[in-house]
Amino acid sequence: MNQPHSETSHGRGELALLAEIRQRAERADRIGQKGGLCLGIGDDCALLAPRKGEELAVTTDLSIDGSHFHLNWHQPEAVGHRALARGLSDLAAMGARPVAAFLSLGLPRSLTGPAAGRGRAASRTWVQRFLDGFLALAEAHNTPLAGGDLAESPIAVADIVLIGAVPRGRALLRSGAKPGDLLYVTGALGGAAAGLACLTEFALPARPNPPRIPKKLATRLAPHLCPQPRIAQGLWLQRRGLASAAIDLSDGISTDLAHLCEESGVAAEINAAALPINPAATLEQALHGGEDYELLFTASPAARLPRAIAGVPVTRIGHILNARAGHSTMTLITPQGAQPLKPHGWEHFS
Amino acid sequence: MNQPHSETSHGRGELALLAEIRQRAERADRIGQKGGLCLGIGDDCALLAPRKGEELAVTTDLSIDGSHFHLNWHQPEAVGHRALARGLSDLAAMGARPVAAFLSLGLPRSLTGPAAGRGRAASRTWVQRFLDGFLALAEAHNTPLAGGDLAESPIAVADIVLIGAVPRGRALLRSGAKPGDLLYVTGALGGAAAGLACLTEFALPARPNPPRIPKKLATRLAPHLCPQPRIAQGLWLQRRGLASAAIDLSDGISTDLAHLCEESGVAAEINAAALPINPAATLEQALHGGEDYELLFTASPAARLPRAIAGVPVTRIGHILNARAGHSTMTLITPQGAQPLKPHGWEHFS
Repeated sequence: MNQPHSETSHGRGELALLAEIRQRAERADRIGQKGGLCLGIGDDCALLAPRKGEELAVTTDLSIDGSHFHLNWHQPEAVGHRALARGLSDLAAMGARPVAAFLSLGLPRSLTGPAAGRGRAASRTWVQRFLDGFLALAEAHNTPLAGGDLAESPIAVADIVLIGAVPRGRALLRSGAKPGDLLYVTGALGGAAAGLACLTEFALPARPNPPRIPKKLATRLAPHLCPQPRIAQGLWLQRRGLASAAIDLSDGISTDLAHLCEESGVAAEINAAALPINPAATLEQALHGGEDYELLFTASPAARLPRAIAGVPVTRIGHILNARAGHSTMTLITPQGAQPLKPHGWEHFS
Repeated sequence: MNQPHSETSHGRGELALLAEIRQRAERADRIGQKGGLCLGIGDDCALLAPRKGEELAVTTDLSIDGSHFHLNWHQPEAVGHRALARGLSDLAAMGARPVAAFLSLGLPRSLTGPAAGRGRAASRTWVQRFLDGFLALAEAHNTPLAGGDLAESPIAVADIVLIGAVPRGRALLRSGAKPGDLLYVTGALGGAAAGLACLTEFALPARPNPPRIPKKLATRLAPHLCPQPRIAQGLWLQRRGLASAAIDLSDGISTDLAHLCEESGVAAEINAAALPINPAATLEQALHGGEDYELLFTASPAARLPRAIAGVPVTRIGHILNARAGHSTMTLITPQGAQPLKPHGWEHFS
């Protein structure tokens, strides 16, 4: 259903939460109506009308406590931000503009009541602070919260659905890379994995509550706690028709490049010395660390790409080759020579 | 993302599952392409193109072990069927035709491996049998599985996203009921609650595995285990423009009628003697039992409604009145007289 309702029996607290979600979502509805959202929270479904000639891009991303986030490590605002960022990043990789977000939230009863502790943060519940993080990023990308579901759950889970729009036939696909194309990446790599390593080290002694982050660590943790989906960069590439294929770096470049190569039926070579590695990260983290949410894309050698798109650097890191039976799909060129590169992602919470 | 990937580390078993989901989904893609699905599983997003003049209806429904289903009570096929039925029923209530379904699945490792026990069922994993139930209902309603997400989770959770299409401005809304309109319901009421009561009685001694259902109980349990979303009936009403408002009965008529009255700003009166109560159910179950997934709708007294739509009976059960301050929004007329009717849903797993 599209009216978040609940299987819990909280009485007033629950009803107040539902009313708050709807009210906070409605504040963003004015944006939504311009973008294609005709009917938001309050009926059996939301209604969306893409503009003439557009098709809709749809993605879902499940975030689960203990796997994608840790209640003991992450402030609730960061959980909300990160959950939404995953979905927005998928839209960015298609070159789509966001139209609406949906949020299915399963929560233990304790997270809907007042938090333990003192100070301003303690006066707000966990779920209110989750929504603070979620809605701030949604607003930054003109994405109204159009519906969802709410239920009591033994563990915290959030499934995010993002719907975007893209002119018909113009979406950036994983499957369009051709031998000879050059390989590019936005931003810097490995920062999210380095930030996570730093956070766990810092957070573990503080269990069971997430620690306040000292200011001197904020920059280092930001790529992990507050990733920026590359919506503007994806739109820029799509509108100019410059990218032959694209994917977002959610699982690490070694894994996501493997997906791109598989869908395109090609091989790829990466130059290690060219990788734009985050100053706090190692080469391993840049290659295999997930959740950087940068865009990895290919373009014809004839395409003229700028050094930065909407303020974010673009770096050429390699090129696309013919796939050859018996040869590694991905190769890493290092000062020591060429070596096969294997997918090594999916380990960001191990 | 739209390519189900996993945070688990199962190795071959996991990859085989992902390949199976994609392969099974692709078999249904031919249906999808006719209906509006342009790109299914395998990229960052799925792509949908509604037909000219259509808008898209979107709904999400979260199902959690222990709340919406019980691994100890429900066969995996029933969990898959019921999870999808919830979402399809929301489309039915809008008068929308299904275009695509998305499935975000969080599972404990044990459910992706071979099941304990003997016989044919034991040779298939829990998740395979979940997909059997899910995909059989999806196929019955021409609904391709277009994407989703997959993750390891301490408890089983399934979030279903349904996308449907409806001619612009023609969707059945909760908000259109007017004083004087008559109130109708499809099918029979209370059967799901009666079936659940029967199942728990029968299943509890059999823990921790769901029992095989004896044939003599199959009819009684069917409304709970195998609810039929009223897609054909919703489409029929929408195409003829006969319903002024509609909602599906997911939480019980007392709760869902309250939603309809609130969104329409009206009151309603129900005649208890007119209610089409399932032969196995009580009046309480018919009024407050959830998960019947019938349609509750209003129509002008001038509208001529048939006794059945697409083989499902339609029963007039009451009418819509002006809302009056200080008076109950809903009234139940019984042989003993009129009494206020209060929302009493949300208790289907308590």
